[in-house]
Formats: sequence, C-alpha cells, structure tokens
Amino acid sequence: MKKNNIQASIIIIGNEILSGRTQDTNTSTLANWFNSIGVKVSEVRVIPDEENIIIETVNLLRKKFDYVFTTGGIGPTHDDITAASISKAFAKKYEIHKDAYKILEDYYKPGEFNEGRQKMVWMPEKANLILNPTSGAPGFYVDNVFCLPGVPSILKSMLGGLKNKIIGGKPILSHTISLKTVESEIAESLSQVQNNNKDVEIGSYPFFHAGKLGVSIVLRSEDKSKIDNCSSQILNFVKEKKILIVNR
Amino acid sequence: MKKNNIQASIIIIGNEILSGRTQDTNTSTLANWFNSIGVKVSEVRVIPDEENIIIETVNLLRKKFDYVFTTGGIGPTHDDITAASISKAFAKKYEIHKDAYKILEDYYKPGEFNEGRQKMVWMPEKANLILNPTSGAPGFYVDNVFCLPGVPSILKSMLGGLKNKIIGGKPILSHTISLKTVESEIAESLSQVQNNNKDVEIGSYPFFHAGKLGVSIVLRSEDKSKIDNCSSQILNFVKEKKILIVNR
Repeated sequence: MKKNNIQASIIIIGNEILSGRTQDTNTSTLANWFNSIGVKVSEVRVIPDEENIIIETVNLLRKKFDYVFTTGGIGPTHDDITAASISKAFAKKYEIHKDAYKILEDYYKPGEFNEGRQKMVWMPEKANLILNPTSGAPGFYVDNVFCLPGVPSILKSMLGGLKNKIIGGKPILSHTISLKTVESEIAESLSQVQNNNKDVEIGSYPFFHAGKLGVSIVLRSEDKSKIDNCSSQILNFVKEKKILIVNR
Repeated sequence: MKKNNIQASIIIIGNEILSGRTQDTNTSTLANWFNSIGVKVSEVRVIPDEENIIIETVNLLRKKFDYVFTTGGIGPTHDDITAASISKAFAKKYEIHKDAYKILEDYYKPGEFNEGRQKMVWMPEKANLILNPTSGAPGFYVDNVFCLPGVPSILKSMLGGLKNKIIGGKPILSHTISLKTVESEIAESLSQVQNNNKDVEIGSYPFFHAGKLGVSIVLRSEDKSKIDNCSSQILNFVKEKKILIVNR
C-alpha cells in the first residue's frame, strides 16, 4: 500500500514576486500537479534572490519534507543564482554539467551557444537533469530538491518528465458543493459535519462572482467513500435549511 | 530622515492556496501597497489552517520583521482559526471584542447578528480593530501583527484605513526597460551594470507575450537619481548592441 502522507514544499525564488511586479502562478500549477500524484503541499515560501537565504531555506525544508521544489533563478543573468546556491547548500562543486552542455550545444545554432547561455549548464556536481521541451535549458535535481525555471509556460512543460521521479501516494480527491448562502448560516452545521468526519478536510470559501454571492464548501480526502459520506451529511442540512445549490 | 530598510512579511493562511484550488492574489496586492509606503516585503509564507503552525510561524516572523500581515481565517466557519491562534501566539485571552460587537450589531438587521456571525468578534484581548468598509466584520492587529481576511476584494478595501498605522520609509521606486532580445545577449553587460550600481536591485525577466518575445529589466531603489544613472548605463549598451526597446 502506498503511503498517504507524502509532503512537499515549494520555494518561489524571486524578487519580482516579493515586489508585487509579478503575480505568482507557479504555486497553483505545482500544487495541482502534486495533488494528481498524491503529494500534499504543506508549505510555500517566497524568498528573495539572495544566496544565504536560499541556502538556509533549502537546507531547512529538504529535511522537513519529502520533496522540495524551487522555481526561478536558473537563467543566464546575474540575478540567476539558484544553481550556485544549491551547490553550496549541498556542499557540492558548482561545475559544468557535461550532459546539459551537450543538450544546449545541439539546441542552439552553431555559434549561438555563447558565454551567457553557457552559464545555464553550471550546476551542482552530479546533478540529475530535468528535461526542458520548451526552451532547451534543463532544470536539475539533487537528492530531494528539484529546481525548475520561473517562467510559467516553461515550468509547466517540464512537469511531464518528472512524474516517475516522484513517489507519491493516492491522489488527493476533492469535491465542491456551492451554495447560495452566507457562511454564518451554515457555520454551526458545517462544524458538526467536520467533527463527525475528522479524516476529511472541509474548507468553506465565500465567493462574489459575476453578481452571485455564495459559499463553496470543499471536501478533500484520498478516500472517495469518505468524501461521499461527508457530502451526503452536508446535503442533509442544506435540504433542511432550504438552501439553494448553485453551479460555480 | 526616514529609515529605509523597513521590512514586512506576509503569511497566507489557507489550505485552498496550498491545494491549488485558489490562486493567491493577496501577495501582489499587499506587496504593491507596501512598496507605495516604503516597506519592503522580505518573505511570504503560505501555511495550512493548523493552529500550531500558525502560532509557530507568527511568533518567528514577528520577531524577525518590522511588520507581519496575515490573510485568511477570520470568518465565521470552523476552519477560521486565525484569531484564536494569534491569541495563543501572544498568550492573550481570546474573547469578545466589545467595539467589534457593536460594529456588527449595527451592521446587521435586527435578528441577523446570529451565533455564526458573533464568532467574528472573538479576538485577542485588547486587539486594535481594522475597519472593513465592504462587509462589516473588522480585522485586527496586535503589536506588529495585522490580520486581514482572505477574500481579495475585502482585503483591498481595508488597506486604505491602515496607512497611518504603518511607519514606512521612502517609497520604493521601480523602472522597467523592455527589450526585444534574449537574456543571454545582455547577461554580461547587465552584470557589469549591476557591479557598478550595487544600491540598485536589477532584475532580468524574460517574457513571451502576445507573440512577442523579450526581456524586461527592472530597476528598483528608493533613490530616483540612482535609478536614472543605472538606466542610462543600460541604454548605452542597448544602443551599442543595436537592441530594440519595446513597450510592455
């Protein structure tokens, strides 16, 4: 039987997120992907492009969680310091990765694999490559720390190749019931259902969308029968209270 | 003269972000707002709705940074545990806040201020209120920890009332130069400019947008003359290399 409590954390490396200039979307991409392979994201940290902070954060989280995914900082410019920092975090040499070099040498036209681009093949010694079907330059992983780029479309394209590198558990299932009501109307009943279903994570989220106001109740568990059971208890009080179920 | 290194951290409390169900937008809202009042966001953490993790994270970050802002978990349902957790973090009583009670008693029609809604006036003893012009229920702050709701539109509406509660520095200015090029073409020159302008934070961000491919260079500093100086050095090498400047 597969373990069910496999946990990951995500480290978003990027001044552009901390400054508010860029809206991070990689967290939700990665979290949805982790769900599908039965891994729970337990923590996300957004940290600046600073070597000592990257080293400290990686070394803390790689001991705490089964997997650590970093995004950002593996490009060719001066602010791309993830690979050098990870090398230091693991006390490994920071050197040219021969396979990555070959990949990029083949990828670019003759003469285009210049010094700037060559920076992208410097990695921790003996790092494992993560192939990049979009723009050539591979990511890498060392032990349980996986380093991906920050550009969302490129990151997405690289996840497919990682599925068999991550040992997940049962996929985490979720079921949403959206109601035309306000949270305070259902708070007490929902609390009782949560007490009777401790293994199901029940979240309550008010929404205001396209003129509609309501509450989405989200049930999460890896066991479909537990979700079904919990759902029917919720539908019972919804019916009793004559609350309308809506699409959302 | 105002201090220039005032730092904040943001704690996003929410299983819905960690599960990938909801895309967080509060980080970028808060980061942009902090910029405008001269506060630098140094770290963001997304953590689950779990009391011990909330307590531990708040107690760590409130000592490390000038300000801590939390979002989420202050509504009326069972998964809203921020106020109770903050009370424990500060070893304060968790009790009915009389002013908050009055605000909500006035806000709702007679009879509508039910038990579910009354949960929203339970706060740490002697908490300071943060008024909510959108939906009544106030946020609160204790010492340097400010607790806001997770619903983005409500959070936004509450920031206006906070400006004079936060002591910021000079606003952090930014200037963007977008180029029709790839990072590797400018990496070396940009690195030299960074070495000559250590006080300016220079970020390089590739973009693929509406068929256009390019790089945005972002300069950040609280000193406009330093940004201007750095910008002209960049424009020099851009001209030399015959790179096109584009709008983005």
